[in-house]
Amino acid sequence: MTTRDTQHRTDQDTRVTQNTEAVWNTETEKVLTKLKEYALGPMRFMNLLSCFELGIVDVLRAEGPRTAVEIAERVGGAPAAIEQLLLLPVKDEFLSQDERGRYELAGLAHPSAADLGRVLPWMDMIKVICLRQLYWLTDSVRTGTVVGLKELYGHEGTLYSATAANDDLRASWSAMMDSVTDYIDGWFFANLQVRPGARILDLAGNTGLGAVLTRKYKAEADPAVVCFDFPEKEAAALATFAAHGESERCGFIGGDVFDGVPEGFDLVLIKHFLDMFDKDNVLRILRNVHAALEPGGEVCVLVPSHPEHLADTSSVDFFPAYFLGCTMGEGGPQKVSTYAAWAREAGFEVTTAISQDVASMPPDMVPMHGIIVGRKN
Amino acid sequence: MTTRDTQHRTDQDTRVTQNTEAVWNTETEKVLTKLKEYALGPMRFMNLLSCFELGIVDVLRAEGPRTAVEIAERVGGAPAAIEQLLLLPVKDEFLSQDERGRYELAGLAHPSAADLGRVLPWMDMIKVICLRQLYWLTDSVRTGTVVGLKELYGHEGTLYSATAANDDLRASWSAMMDSVTDYIDGWFFANLQVRPGARILDLAGNTGLGAVLTRKYKAEADPAVVCFDFPEKEAAALATFAAHGESERCGFIGGDVFDGVPEGFDLVLIKHFLDMFDKDNVLRILRNVHAALEPGGEVCVLVPSHPEHLADTSSVDFFPAYFLGCTMGEGGPQKVSTYAAWAREAGFEVTTAISQDVASMPPDMVPMHGIIVGRKN
Repeated sequence: MTTRDTQHRTDQDTRVTQNTEAVWNTETEKVLTKLKEYALGPMRFMNLLSCFELGIVDVLRAEGPRTAVEIAERVGGAPAAIEQLLLLPVKDEFLSQDERGRYELAGLAHPSAADLGRVLPWMDMIKVICLRQLYWLTDSVRTGTVVGLKELYGHEGTLYSATAANDDLRASWSAMMDSVTDYIDGWFFANLQVRPGARILDLAGNTGLGAVLTRKYKAEADPAVVCFDFPEKEAAALATFAAHGESERCGFIGGDVFDGVPEGFDLVLIKHFLDMFDKDNVLRILRNVHAALEPGGEVCVLVPSHPEHLADTSSVDFFPAYFLGCTMGEGGPQKVSTYAAWAREAGFEVTTAISQDVASMPPDMVPMHGIIVGRKN
Repeated sequence: MTTRDTQHRTDQDTRVTQNTEAVWNTETEKVLTKLKEYALGPMRFMNLLSCFELGIVDVLRAEGPRTAVEIAERVGGAPAAIEQLLLLPVKDEFLSQDERGRYELAGLAHPSAADLGRVLPWMDMIKVICLRQLYWLTDSVRTGTVVGLKELYGHEGTLYSATAANDDLRASWSAMMDSVTDYIDGWFFANLQVRPGARILDLAGNTGLGAVLTRKYKAEADPAVVCFDFPEKEAAALATFAAHGESERCGFIGGDVFDGVPEGFDLVLIKHFLDMFDKDNVLRILRNVHAALEPGGEVCVLVPSHPEHLADTSSVDFFPAYFLGCTMGEGGPQKVSTYAAWAREAGFEVTTAISQDVASMPPDMVPMHGIIVGRKN
């Protein structure tokens, strides 16, 4: 290298140093770091989920430490690809790697089968219902429609109507909902007061399972429970009742909640439903319920809700994008205090407005539920 | 409520409490919390990016505090949807909301235009090149092909061939690469020693910009630089040289690096290329370079690389999923020590093996680059 070259190189070093060692103040550094974390979210998610999908976690659990070559023989793919895929789970201590290059379960050895039985359906749902659809989130917000469902499935409508014709959506969504419902029903019914012989309407009760569960959880009150939903759900609902031996005390009424709610009930349950709608539609529903009740009649709402202090759960990390971009093109949970205010606006006296205790929820659980009970006076 | 009902309810409370207040030990809690963070990654990513895409950040920056109704008037969408979308950025302090419900920039007021000029092309690339494609990561690992490109674009091949026919992929990928190249070239050329009058081959030099930049950064050495790439790139490369007034000292040779490397050069540059391949192909490339050099000739590799200690950067959070599921169906960076070992395996004496200083990188920057220089003796 000549002297001229040396000189040139030194000049450049200085410039480069000034360029790349620019100082970011603490606030800026914090924000830029957070933006990086956001950007990496989709990559981390699918990298980890693929380790489960490929069966790598199962192989390591069942067979003990294995090299990338041994794993590739069992699950497919090139050993070099397996090595790349396992870098992140090793870095984040889900797995570990010994000095001979063999992988084994580390953090992933801890969750129970029941824990993973909650987590994996949830991750699969985010993959199937959200990951690709989110690409069109901006268009969905602009149009108030789920653009991703149209682009990917040719479906114009909501996720709930799309599940009818698309097995992959239905299977993934149902597995997640079953897991959430299993978890939340105990809490809901423990907080639900039912008078003996009460006449209960399960509003938007789908194909009747909620009615059956109400009978099961409130067996000593022996309530009569009617499932109210679109008329096309009737056959499936009646089959559900028959299958559970509940045909006598369960029934079905077909209709649309936005047109009106059947009369003659002491208690109307609205479970997992109001969060699908914006305020206008929530008020229409609550007012229709209010109009259908006799004085003394009650509505009991179970709904995923944002915490009063947003940072207390990950609710807002999930639901807005889920409802706007993946399921409804509108809606999203409100705070329990907001739902209570809306119930009052619809004419109810609010007698209960409670949230789950976050400390009692599994650490992986995102939806925090609230219960709002309103009485018509 | 009757006594029987009360009794029933109390029994249930106990059961429910036992059910929902199950205790997770610290290790399990840590892992389940981490799994939740992973699962939320895609949701957070697109929620935040949509705030930029819709122009909400620009409106707040230009016009000051605005309500959801005012924002919706400017950017489209329903005010209720804007409210939901802004819950997360408020929670995470990118934005704030005052007592009148008006949103304004909080954390997002700090990054400079130059900062956002790095971050936003990066986020757009993750959306366009990765978000949907990742859905097929597991299949991509199994088959060693980019299944997402086939499913979404009907393309059988790599991202690099897909960009030719798909403007959206090309635009997003190029904007990100331009940003990374702008950032890294100063560092690379500051660490590159070029003898006066050196004959340089820019291997896989695409359409010649790298050759022009080599001339610019090493102007005092006045090297002759030849771009080597597929023959179909020749016309574009010659146009690049002409546009920069470099037709005299820049040239083009068409060929395939896997078939052989042109002889007659003092220095071969391999920039942003080896990370696309697994070991076998990296060795084929390096051996072909070695065969083409005279004794004393050098190869200089610039390559994104994983840090020796995986947790030192977010490299492994990004690259494996990117290469396996979104771009190549194989490949992915190695540690600098691994590239150095492979260079030795190909016959080189390794004279330089360095990594960027992480502390000098912008806080949002993911790729950490390494330089490996090998000499043929």
